[in-house]
Amino acid sequence: MPDPAHRVVIIGGGFGGLYAAQHLRTARVQVTLLDKRNYHLFQPLLYQVATGALSPANIASPLRAILRRHLNTTVLLGEVRDIDAVARQVILPWGQVPYDTLIVAAGARDQYFGHDDWARFAVGLKSIEEATETRRRLLLAFEAAECEADAEKRAALLTFVVVGAGPTGVEMAGSIGELALYTLRRNFRSIDPAQAKILLVEGGDRVLSTFPPELSSKAEAALKRQGVTVCTGVMVTDITAEGVSLKAGDRAEWVSARTVLWAAGVRASRLGEVLRDAAGAELDRTGRVVVQPDLTVRGHPEILVIGDLANDSHSTGKPLPGVAQVAMQQGKYAALLIRARLGGDTTGPFKYVDKGNMATIGRAAAVADLGWLQLSGYLAWWAWLLIHIVYLIHFENRILVLWQWAWNYWTRNRSARLITGGPTSESGAAAP
Amino acid sequence: MPDPAHRVVIIGGGFGGLYAAQHLRTARVQVTLLDKRNYHLFQPLLYQVATGALSPANIASPLRAILRRHLNTTVLLGEVRDIDAVARQVILPWGQVPYDTLIVAAGARDQYFGHDDWARFAVGLKSIEEATETRRRLLLAFEAAECEADAEKRAALLTFVVVGAGPTGVEMAGSIGELALYTLRRNFRSIDPAQAKILLVEGGDRVLSTFPPELSSKAEAALKRQGVTVCTGVMVTDITAEGVSLKAGDRAEWVSARTVLWAAGVRASRLGEVLRDAAGAELDRTGRVVVQPDLTVRGHPEILVIGDLANDSHSTGKPLPGVAQVAMQQGKYAALLIRARLGGDTTGPFKYVDKGNMATIGRAAAVADLGWLQLSGYLAWWAWLLIHIVYLIHFENRILVLWQWAWNYWTRNRSARLITGGPTSESGAAAP
Repeated sequence: MPDPAHRVVIIGGGFGGLYAAQHLRTARVQVTLLDKRNYHLFQPLLYQVATGALSPANIASPLRAILRRHLNTTVLLGEVRDIDAVARQVILPWGQVPYDTLIVAAGARDQYFGHDDWARFAVGLKSIEEATETRRRLLLAFEAAECEADAEKRAALLTFVVVGAGPTGVEMAGSIGELALYTLRRNFRSIDPAQAKILLVEGGDRVLSTFPPELSSKAEAALKRQGVTVCTGVMVTDITAEGVSLKAGDRAEWVSARTVLWAAGVRASRLGEVLRDAAGAELDRTGRVVVQPDLTVRGHPEILVIGDLANDSHSTGKPLPGVAQVAMQQGKYAALLIRARLGGDTTGPFKYVDKGNMATIGRAAAVADLGWLQLSGYLAWWAWLLIHIVYLIHFENRILVLWQWAWNYWTRNRSARLITGGPTSESGAAAP
Repeated sequence: MPDPAHRVVIIGGGFGGLYAAQHLRTARVQVTLLDKRNYHLFQPLLYQVATGALSPANIASPLRAILRRHLNTTVLLGEVRDIDAVARQVILPWGQVPYDTLIVAAGARDQYFGHDDWARFAVGLKSIEEATETRRRLLLAFEAAECEADAEKRAALLTFVVVGAGPTGVEMAGSIGELALYTLRRNFRSIDPAQAKILLVEGGDRVLSTFPPELSSKAEAALKRQGVTVCTGVMVTDITAEGVSLKAGDRAEWVSARTVLWAAGVRASRLGEVLRDAAGAELDRTGRVVVQPDLTVRGHPEILVIGDLANDSHSTGKPLPGVAQVAMQQGKYAALLIRARLGGDTTGPFKYVDKGNMATIGRAAAVADLGWLQLSGYLAWWAWLLIHIVYLIHFENRILVLWQWAWNYWTRNRSARLITGGPTSESGAAAP
């Protein structure tokens, strides 16, 4: 470019970062998108990879492919080490990238509430690696049960505990129910997968606590039909390789379970702390950066924080939820803010438009809260399906996902149920 | 079953073992199929996973799903520790499985000709894990080159060495050429992927040495059009993290290359040695079991060895090649032999019917040797495509693969080019 264009650096290629980059396509700026992954991940469908319904590549698109025709955009792979807010540089293992405006959209990671030792036994669901590891553990449990002579051990192998009944936990538990009741039917000779015990453990008093109570009830009923035991008002007090300790009021209970999945909470990316140290950003309890109404860091109008990493309570009086639509709208807003500033103009504060929330429980069962309308059952499921297909980034992935959903719907099959990676393939010893 | 049925144990769910199980479906036998994986892998297309054209689940089908309706068949996951040929038991980590007839179809693994230390630097292509690791290294090399300021290091990052020019090596090299020339075009800003140097190193005097010389020439010409440098008559004398030492006659050369792929040879599974120790089986130079004309181990008519693990030179005077069609035919023969014996009958020796060989070099380029007819170019490519689709086990996979091939053909895209697992995701440090 002839004149020294304004340099925008975006950290993170999730919904927030990607939407910001896409809305800067025609702006007079040089964009550098940094990510530690080479792909944009469609996280809302990650649980379908974890339960063998889809392949990782179906819900991940290479960032370079998406941004190939964005001639003002460079994609670089690397994990950010530090930010120098004085020299205005992002520091990577192999060098520095200078910025005039910085957009930090680094997202969130699993939160074990101070029990980081639980991470080994209870896998989260934030990355493809965690999804394929979950898939490996789920499937391996059924395999090991088929070879297990001891009834008690077999029962522990066929007990699955999902911690946390937000959308992710509900969707995971429903999918495991589907897998056990239908997909694996007649697959085994000594065990009946339908005998699997699936516990959905939630500290609060209902599932999907961010939804209206009526939809929570409907979701709970749908979960029960899928063979899931819903335990609300129950806290997890310990997790080991052998099972979980639960506590309901004064009553404590031990559940032997070889597979525990974690969907109980997230905390912000490490980059929140980096921003605190580098730019004096204020963090909330879960490590999110408390942002100004225009999503900037106080005292640093050139640094914007968006998506799951941002705590923005200006819009609705309480922090916006860590969902894709918030990140998308904030990404677009960040791009518009930069464009306005370059034109010597200003924008108003960021305003969130809540288009509603939805969660699926399984085949043809979902709940949707559109604010003015609440849906459940078949209709909600169709709405869910349509919206997720529309937001899948690549046309090819849409066709692949639709075909597999149609196939799975009619045959109850899940063809991506492969046990890969992990101890099995390395040591070759399959049964744990 | 009312009467004590004849117990057949099959080790390995590749083409040989799976075909044997399928042809025993209606026989009065109890079949147990043992595998250390929970899926049948369509190995001929593994290179397409390694180069991001297909997802692992597209070429792998869960064994339980394939054999779900085979009511006389039990699938068990586990790696065989030992065989007790006297007590007629297969020994697994969690117990024993007794047999009346044993079919060993455990396949082959990479062979580094006594240089097992090369395995760390030169990945083979025998499993899904190796394919995704290859994909990770290939893609990471381009990513690291994009961030590399030093010209020499950049050149080493953009040099790819494929060792061995059999079908696998030729297909890998051709696919890397395709990736560099077309798929990644305009994906980068500081490097031009088309500048990548792809060396195909072969000790023999031509590529595809098992094909007629004319087809070797055509394959070599097609490889050159894909940007591949073919080095025949060249031996690899060392492989390190920095590159490879080559030797052509008296001339030695060092090639700086950060990515080396191994397609130079296989040796038989460890179970060959187990059979030698347990049943006195004779092994050849590469560890294969030398079998009788009816594929049994000498002195053990109840043990059959089929597929890549067997050295059967009765059919054609020299050992049959380690290809899928040999394994399929031997698997079917093993089932027929067992059926005949149960009926008090015998079968003649195994006879191999060679239906021809083929290899693809890239988009619309392939060679096929059908014995009575030699094809190359577009026609051979269509024949290749048709045959591979027909032999893919599951209908769903056929549609998924066809769709992705059509998409890749028109768009030159490869949507499964994800960098997953490995050091990147664990340490988060992307650029090496």
